[in-house]
Amino acid sequence: MPEFRQDLISGQWVIMAADRAKRPETFVCKGDHELDCTELPERVESCPFCPGNEALTPPEVFSISEPVAGAGNQRWLVRVVPNKYPAVEPAVEPVPGSCRDELLFKEMPGYGVHEVLIETPLHNCHPATLGPRQMELVVESYRQRCSSLAANRRLRFVQIFRNHGRKAGASIAHPHSQLIALPFIPAAVKDEIDGAYRYYLNHERCPYCHLLAEELACGERVIAENASCVAYLPYASRFPFESWIVPRRHQSSFVELTGREASDLAAIICTVLGSLSRSLDGPPYNYYLHNSPLRMTGLAHYHWHLEIIPKLSMPAGFEIGTGVFINVTLPEEAAHFIREKGGEGVGATEKNLFHIGSA
Amino acid sequence: MPEFRQDLISGQWVIMAADRAKRPETFVCKGDHELDCTELPERVESCPFCPGNEALTPPEVFSISEPVAGAGNQRWLVRVVPNKYPAVEPAVEPVPGSCRDELLFKEMPGYGVHEVLIETPLHNCHPATLGPRQMELVVESYRQRCSSLAANRRLRFVQIFRNHGRKAGASIAHPHSQLIALPFIPAAVKDEIDGAYRYYLNHERCPYCHLLAEELACGERVIAENASCVAYLPYASRFPFESWIVPRRHQSSFVELTGREASDLAAIICTVLGSLSRSLDGPPYNYYLHNSPLRMTGLAHYHWHLEIIPKLSMPAGFEIGTGVFINVTLPEEAAHFIREKGGEGVGATEKNLFHIGSA
Repeated sequence: MPEFRQDLISGQWVIMAADRAKRPETFVCKGDHELDCTELPERVESCPFCPGNEALTPPEVFSISEPVAGAGNQRWLVRVVPNKYPAVEPAVEPVPGSCRDELLFKEMPGYGVHEVLIETPLHNCHPATLGPRQMELVVESYRQRCSSLAANRRLRFVQIFRNHGRKAGASIAHPHSQLIALPFIPAAVKDEIDGAYRYYLNHERCPYCHLLAEELACGERVIAENASCVAYLPYASRFPFESWIVPRRHQSSFVELTGREASDLAAIICTVLGSLSRSLDGPPYNYYLHNSPLRMTGLAHYHWHLEIIPKLSMPAGFEIGTGVFINVTLPEEAAHFIREKGGEGVGATEKNLFHIGSA
Repeated sequence: MPEFRQDLISGQWVIMAADRAKRPETFVCKGDHELDCTELPERVESCPFCPGNEALTPPEVFSISEPVAGAGNQRWLVRVVPNKYPAVEPAVEPVPGSCRDELLFKEMPGYGVHEVLIETPLHNCHPATLGPRQMELVVESYRQRCSSLAANRRLRFVQIFRNHGRKAGASIAHPHSQLIALPFIPAAVKDEIDGAYRYYLNHERCPYCHLLAEELACGERVIAENASCVAYLPYASRFPFESWIVPRRHQSSFVELTGREASDLAAIICTVLGSLSRSLDGPPYNYYLHNSPLRMTGLAHYHWHLEIIPKLSMPAGFEIGTGVFINVTLPEEAAHFIREKGGEGVGATEKNLFHIGSA
């Protein structure tokens, strides 16, 4: 029988269509690997993100490099550049005073920052195959950019996100994340923070901390954990195989991570993306970091987390019209499937993944 | 330069990425017509929605028929049946009392109604080619089902929707709409009604009536109109070519339509879908009816409307994470393109469309 499940924080209902249910294995993405790393070379002459083609991007705003022997030179390992085709721009007029408010048709200049975070010099790699050490550099670049952008008081929120695979919106195969910094707090984030605040007022407890404790106690939706982080499939998952990574220690902003926690985060991202890749045979996916607004650190009610959405279903008329999602796979079953087919834990990711099919 | 636009009613911001802007003609769906009517036969032996195959669906709950000469029999023109693979079901326990509320993991039985509205006996047809008279029967079946379901007080809201083309989620080519009736008011609808209510309290005026008057006065986003309805592309469109059909007379529920208004609605649906089909060469699309909750007729602040979303872009990590959409085509430009390439008005739809390419 189908059931409705309500998300604790947003209050939104999801339809778990158990009778329509697809077995988890029907989502295995056979023959669907547009970005199969093993078929790509390490460097592509025309790729704007490959080493040697730095002139094809706008000048970098941040990088992490290592010395190259003998040359006195540096070789970049991670490189952050402005997006060449930005959705928002820092060059437009500042926001205050420039907002046209004609009651019905309100607009303001598209002020903001849109950057690309090139995750590795290697073209034929992706987070599930990068290895935890390179992923640590990626995580460090996320933190550095969030910290730097926090100094700009015209910006309120930074959305870090990653689109993997053409079906998930990636137009360039070279591994990269993006960030868009906005002069307002976006609706989905505001709703989440508001919901968490209501819960906190009622229960004097962070709802994410509470959920995490329950998920660990119950265990059926947990897919990975280490000293600092836990990965689980949320009870009211909107999408099949939707997976969250949540830090154990309460922290409202990602920039509050200690060095050890950042390493553990990098490791668990590799584990989870590796598990999804192995169990679903390299699915396209989106991930995004839900973080507190800039400069709003130390919130007792909010708890940052990373949401990973494999692109396995498509919102259609009903979902767009109502905002209610129909999920045809129970998170408990999907979690079981990932644990069974997803292979080894953290340690194995770096060693094995690059040699496994489309992972 | 990019700009932000705010939706009057929901308050949500949209990024109009003018610098990334795609010219409207880049959305023409060449070679993308999975459901090209002209290539399909009038009847398909294996199609559960074709005449003669009525036993392949659950028993009908509503139909409109015409007498067949000589036989004393009837031939159905529109037929409504329960969905064979329902997302929600009327057979589950009633809602009151059956809600399990364990603080963190709230669920309730998936009670509801999920029906398929088969729009025509002809397999090789769709709304842009049905013709206004057949579309009137479809509109009439929408009204009849909404009215009937309103008698069930366990249901709060009916979502009528249509997925056209495989890329928009349609799995059966035979023309059909669907409805899902829910025991709660879904989030997207509630947000819209709440926003309209706030506007009404402040301005003592329905915001949709106000917007409609402004859109007609300005005209640049209007694509069709007749005595009862207007079609325009909303100022803060989330998607390229997003098109709304709004009744001129204030009415919060679709069931308040007069007979004449229902005819005009059918006609303008044909016109708009015909125009989108001609100008974009048969794009996949979703449409859904935003209506007041069941039994809540006569609201002064809410105004039902039909939202049509051609499937031309894909929400990715940023959109899912923030709820902020990046629209790369200004509605003014898209409206101009539709008016220029969309061909004739209401009268022409039935006559010409069936013979035009993928329309």
